[in-house]
Amino acid sequence: MNYRLTLAFCGTGYHGWQVQQNARTVSETVQDAAEAVLGRRYDLTGCSRTDSGVHASGFVAVLRTDKSLAPSSLLKALNVKLPPDISVVDCREAPPDFHPRYGARAKRYLYLYYDSPARNPFYRDRMWHSPQHLEETRMDRAARLFLGRHNFSAFCAAGGKIPEEERFRTLYDCSVRREGERVILSVTGDGFLYHMVRIMAGTLLEVSRGKIAPEDIGEIIASRDRSRAGLTAPSCGLYLDHVFYEEGGIPHDGTC
Amino acid sequence: MNYRLTLAFCGTGYHGWQVQQNARTVSETVQDAAEAVLGRRYDLTGCSRTDSGVHASGFVAVLRTDKSLAPSSLLKALNVKLPPDISVVDCREAPPDFHPRYGARAKRYLYLYYDSPARNPFYRDRMWHSPQHLEETRMDRAARLFLGRHNFSAFCAAGGKIPEEERFRTLYDCSVRREGERVILSVTGDGFLYHMVRIMAGTLLEVSRGKIAPEDIGEIIASRDRSRAGLTAPSCGLYLDHVFYEEGGIPHDGTC
Repeated sequence: MNYRLTLAFCGTGYHGWQVQQNARTVSETVQDAAEAVLGRRYDLTGCSRTDSGVHASGFVAVLRTDKSLAPSSLLKALNVKLPPDISVVDCREAPPDFHPRYGARAKRYLYLYYDSPARNPFYRDRMWHSPQHLEETRMDRAARLFLGRHNFSAFCAAGGKIPEEERFRTLYDCSVRREGERVILSVTGDGFLYHMVRIMAGTLLEVSRGKIAPEDIGEIIASRDRSRAGLTAPSCGLYLDHVFYEEGGIPHDGTC
Repeated sequence: MNYRLTLAFCGTGYHGWQVQQNARTVSETVQDAAEAVLGRRYDLTGCSRTDSGVHASGFVAVLRTDKSLAPSSLLKALNVKLPPDISVVDCREAPPDFHPRYGARAKRYLYLYYDSPARNPFYRDRMWHSPQHLEETRMDRAARLFLGRHNFSAFCAAGGKIPEEERFRTLYDCSVRREGERVILSVTGDGFLYHMVRIMAGTLLEVSRGKIAPEDIGEIIASRDRSRAGLTAPSCGLYLDHVFYEEGGIPHDGTC
């Protein structure tokens, strides 16, 4: 049976999702747990690569096995074997042709900031701290200018291997809201370039600080020039929140 | 100048507040930071002892110095030197006779549970996980029976050194509320016995599970028998939230 796993993980202790030599990764840790449960090592395919330190509340992966354990039993057994910073929140049978990456129609990322004069020890490694007040209304006004289909070269880390003419992506939703001292950027799109959300988050911080005007976002996008956008926000604030497949409704606040 | 510090700390990496041999404690870590800032080691007195792994959002301590640095400058400098799991959230001059423990009129503790079928990696070491649904209304009904002045011997860890006749404490507020999947026990009292809140939290879990009826709380208190109360809840869910001194109004939902 192929199992579709939905995982939540705190990425602080991991070098991202994908298997790397000499570095602890989430996929490897889940494979270890599955091996302990099923007695054999199976392929595990994730919905995306994630950077070191990035978190997830709804990461989707497929474990391809020749076993037929009930999904609910596999879920429980995996959670017993997994370390406390990774958890299987859902487990169901996946159709044979289900691919968590190619089948994904959209993904939603959250980027979490908080503003308070002093650091909050409980937000360590979980959110980006701003000692200055964050201007969430201004940030939201800027965020909405990312909506739609654009070439996001200006928001792609140098070293990204995708040719410039293939850097078009569509954002269906992009907004900023405040919850107490937390400020949350929510971005849903059909795909993301390398460091794209983190560069957007860093740019929105500069919008909050008045270094970039909300109205300039369109021009920065059009420039396709990475140096026009803001800095890359730290990975600790980024969460892969949800992956949308055929059956799921994608929030569509966009203009496209 | 004597400085009154309000500290937030994540207690996971510490053996409680008070200085111990061969164990990293919060007070020592704060003293180290103060020494790095002020060039000399000074006495630091806390408002309470805390167990290993217990957190705080409003722990109060006094640093007695012969310096006259502005409190706002000391706050900033300490936060630069402190590790990310401890933060000074307030710093002000303390009157010479201010004692954070003896001057405290009441303290508020929070105990955090959460209920979800699978563990939440982001709540690790921060809350007590219940795979079963928590019956917060039932727990709240029981919690309110703790209000008032009682001998809390039944809620004092064996090994507590206080004679039984001195185990009277007054609770001004004791309630349970739900916020999403989090269930929060809030307890305000004039003092607490060893492990008292954790035993109350463990007892309320058994109330949720139906092993103890809410109405039985009065009888358990009256028995003064530790074995009648529930288990001791893990330290990771406990937060010292606020210390009330003369100037602060103590919430007074109690009957006393």
